[in-house]
Amino acid sequence: MKITSLEQTSAAPMQMAGAVGVTKQVPLGVADGVPNFSFRVFTVVPGGHTPYHIHDSEHLNYVMQGEGVLVDEAGVEHPIKAGEFALVIPNEKHQYRNTSVTEDLKMICAVPSAYE
Amino acid sequence: MKITSLEQTSAAPMQMAGAVGVTKQVPLGVADGVPNFSFRVFTVVPGGHTPYHIHDSEHLNYVMQGEGVLVDEAGVEHPIKAGEFALVIPNEKHQYRNTSVTEDLKMICAVPSAYE
Repeated sequence: MKITSLEQTSAAPMQMAGAVGVTKQVPLGVADGVPNFSFRVFTVVPGGHTPYHIHDSEHLNYVMQGEGVLVDEAGVEHPIKAGEFALVIPNEKHQYRNTSVTEDLKMICAVPSAYE
Repeated sequence: MKITSLEQTSAAPMQMAGAVGVTKQVPLGVADGVPNFSFRVFTVVPGGHTPYHIHDSEHLNYVMQGEGVLVDEAGVEHPIKAGEFALVIPNEKHQYRNTSVTEDLKMICAVPSAYE
């Protein structure tokens, strides 16, 4: 059993090519002995974005704060905002963009352990 | 790709023995084609609780709203509140209780697909 918060969780810039202004935290994951999947949290600054990329791990998201868009494989931007859930299925090209000019976009991005 | 909210997601009482005042929703899960794990959301009314039980699926939680306690296998109550994350590992006896007298406790409870 573990109870934690983002304030207690270390944070580091997302190093992946194509990421701009993204910080990554892993409040629940492999280091805690979770056997199958992990809760990562990404904080994207206003104007920032994750890579526009593709991989064989799904994403399950919950938007904790802010607003932005989730770009699909055709390049279409789908609005997302605090309180909403999003799913990216395996091998679906995608990107998260913070479209606010004032507020961070913060979201849970859950993935299988191997992709943590 | 799917974007949804709790307002768009059907809700039903948790039928499991030992559950009191708990509503279940599955905003992202097997019906959406998620291959490995599911996001369920439980809403527990003031004074309500989930079963005090044990199973071989882990729980990964994010508390969206309210406050309560997570009871461990020794019966010790650990406070949880909005913005916090919790982990219950496989085969660890546990229960979530809403200790508020006014506000619902609402949380994501992510599990492997087989336990959805």
